[in-house]
Amino acid sequence: MEDDEKKAAATAWFVDLRDRICASFEALETDLAEDGLPAGRFARKTWQRDGGGGGEMALMHGRVFEKVGVNLSTVHGILPADYRAAIPGAEAAGGAFWAAGISLVAHPRSPLIPATHMNCRMIVTGQSWFGGGADLTPTFLDESDAKAFHEAFSAACAKHPVADYERYKRWCDEYFFLPHRGEARGIGGIFFDNLASGDWHADFAFVKEVGCAFHAIYPALVRRHLGQPWTVEEKRAQLIKRGRYVEFNLLYDRGTMFGLKTGGNVEAILMSLPPEVAWP
Amino acid sequence: MEDDEKKAAATAWFVDLRDRICASFEALETDLAEDGLPAGRFARKTWQRDGGGGGEMALMHGRVFEKVGVNLSTVHGILPADYRAAIPGAEAAGGAFWAAGISLVAHPRSPLIPATHMNCRMIVTGQSWFGGGADLTPTFLDESDAKAFHEAFSAACAKHPVADYERYKRWCDEYFFLPHRGEARGIGGIFFDNLASGDWHADFAFVKEVGCAFHAIYPALVRRHLGQPWTVEEKRAQLIKRGRYVEFNLLYDRGTMFGLKTGGNVEAILMSLPPEVAWP
Repeated sequence: MEDDEKKAAATAWFVDLRDRICASFEALETDLAEDGLPAGRFARKTWQRDGGGGGEMALMHGRVFEKVGVNLSTVHGILPADYRAAIPGAEAAGGAFWAAGISLVAHPRSPLIPATHMNCRMIVTGQSWFGGGADLTPTFLDESDAKAFHEAFSAACAKHPVADYERYKRWCDEYFFLPHRGEARGIGGIFFDNLASGDWHADFAFVKEVGCAFHAIYPALVRRHLGQPWTVEEKRAQLIKRGRYVEFNLLYDRGTMFGLKTGGNVEAILMSLPPEVAWP
Repeated sequence: MEDDEKKAAATAWFVDLRDRICASFEALETDLAEDGLPAGRFARKTWQRDGGGGGEMALMHGRVFEKVGVNLSTVHGILPADYRAAIPGAEAAGGAFWAAGISLVAHPRSPLIPATHMNCRMIVTGQSWFGGGADLTPTFLDESDAKAFHEAFSAACAKHPVADYERYKRWCDEYFFLPHRGEARGIGGIFFDNLASGDWHADFAFVKEVGCAFHAIYPALVRRHLGQPWTVEEKRAQLIKRGRYVEFNLLYDRGTMFGLKTGGNVEAILMSLPPEVAWP
C-alpha cells in the first residue's frame, strides 16, 4: 500500500468516526426529554490552513453537552525550524510534515457526567506513525464509570498485539498531570504516540479499535447519568474543575502547542476550552 | 548602600504600596453604595516557599472587584539548570537568585470598568535589576480612560531620566500580545525589565513612581464608572474577553512561567486568573 493510500484510508476513517460519534451525541440530546432546553445539534464549519490543508470543526451547544467539539484536520507543510527537534523524523524531512486526525472534547452540562477527550492521529514526516488515546475527567468520581472506562480500553488493547495497555495507561496518567498542582487532570484512560510497529495495517487496526471503543463506552456512561438532578454546589465544583482543564491545555498540552506552532486553526485548536470556567 | 539594604528598601516599599492600594480598593468597595452585595475586604494569607522565602497574598471578592489579588513575594534560592539561560546573570551566580515584588491583577465586576495588571520587582542574580509595568484591559474601549492611563505613565517616565516612555510603551504592546489570535491583550501601558542604569537609587525612584502613578490613576478610572448600569450582553462580552486574559497568562506570560518554574506558590501565581470566564 502506497503512502498516499494509507493517508487516504486514515483520513476517510477519521471522517467516518466523526459522523458516528456526532450521531450518537445528537441522539443523547434527543433522549434527554425533561430539560427545558432544546436538543442540541452539531454545526459544522470547514477551515483552510495557510500553508496547506485544512479541516472541519463540528461544534454543539446542547442540553446534555454544554459544549462539545469534534475536529477533523488534514494538514501538511513545513514545520518551523525551532520546532523540528521536537517531532521525530522532521529534521530528516527538511521539516516537511503531514498530519491528519480527529480530536474530540466534551464538556457536559451536568456536573455528574464526566468530561472527556479523545484523539486519533496519523503523522508523516521522515517517519510515519499513529498516536491517540482517550481519557475521562469527572468532577465527582463515580467508581463504576471509571472501571467501565478503563475496562473498555483494556479490552481494546488486548485484541491488538501492537498495543501495550499497561504502558498506554501509565502514559496517560503521566501525560495528563498538572505538575504545578500535583494533580491529575482526570482519571486517565490511554495515551499512545509514535506507534509504528512496522506493520501499518496492524497499527491502523488498533487505532480504529480505540475510536470504536470510545464510541461504545462514552455515550453509554453519559446515558447512565442522563436526567440525574444536581445542585448549584456541584455545578460550581464543575466550573472550578474545568479551570484545571484549561490550565493543562494551555500550559502543557502538546496537541495545543503543535496546533499553534504549525499555524493551525485557532478556533479549532481552542475549541477544547470549556464553555464556562471559574477560578475562585 | 549594601545589597542587603537595597533588598530591604525595595521589599519595604512593595509592602507599603500594597497597603496603600488595598486601602484605596476597599474605599471603592465602600463607596459603591447602591449595589446589593456587601463591600469587599481583602483577606491576607502568608505562604512559605520550599527552598527559600515566601510571600503574602491579599485577595478580595467584592462588589466593585469581582476578584482582585495583590501579591507580595520575596523569594530566593537556586534556579533549575534548564531555566538559567533565560535569566540574566543566573549562570554566573551558579543559579542563585533573589527576587521581590508586588503583583496585582484586578477583575472588576462591571464590564464597563477595565481590568488591570501592575507589577514592580527587583531581581538579583549575578546581576541586579528592576522590572515592572502596568497595563489596562477594557472589554469596551473608553477612549478617555485609555488616554488618561497612558498619560499617567508618560508623565511618570518623563520625571526620570533612566526611563524611556516610548520604548516601555512599545515593549508593553509587544509583550501583552496573543500571536495565535493576532490580538492585543488590552490597550497596553508600560512594561520594562532589566532596568539597571548603574544608579540603583535612580532606578528605584522610577519604580516607585510607576507604583504611585498606578495608584493614582487606576482607582480614579474605576471611580468614573462606579454605579454605571450594564447589560447581560456586556457582561457576557467581558467573560469572553477574560478568556483571552487566561490564554495570555498560561501560554505566554513570563511571570507565570518564572513562578511555576521556581516553585512559587501556585495559589499566588494563578490568583491572576479571572473569577468567571467563558469560551463560547
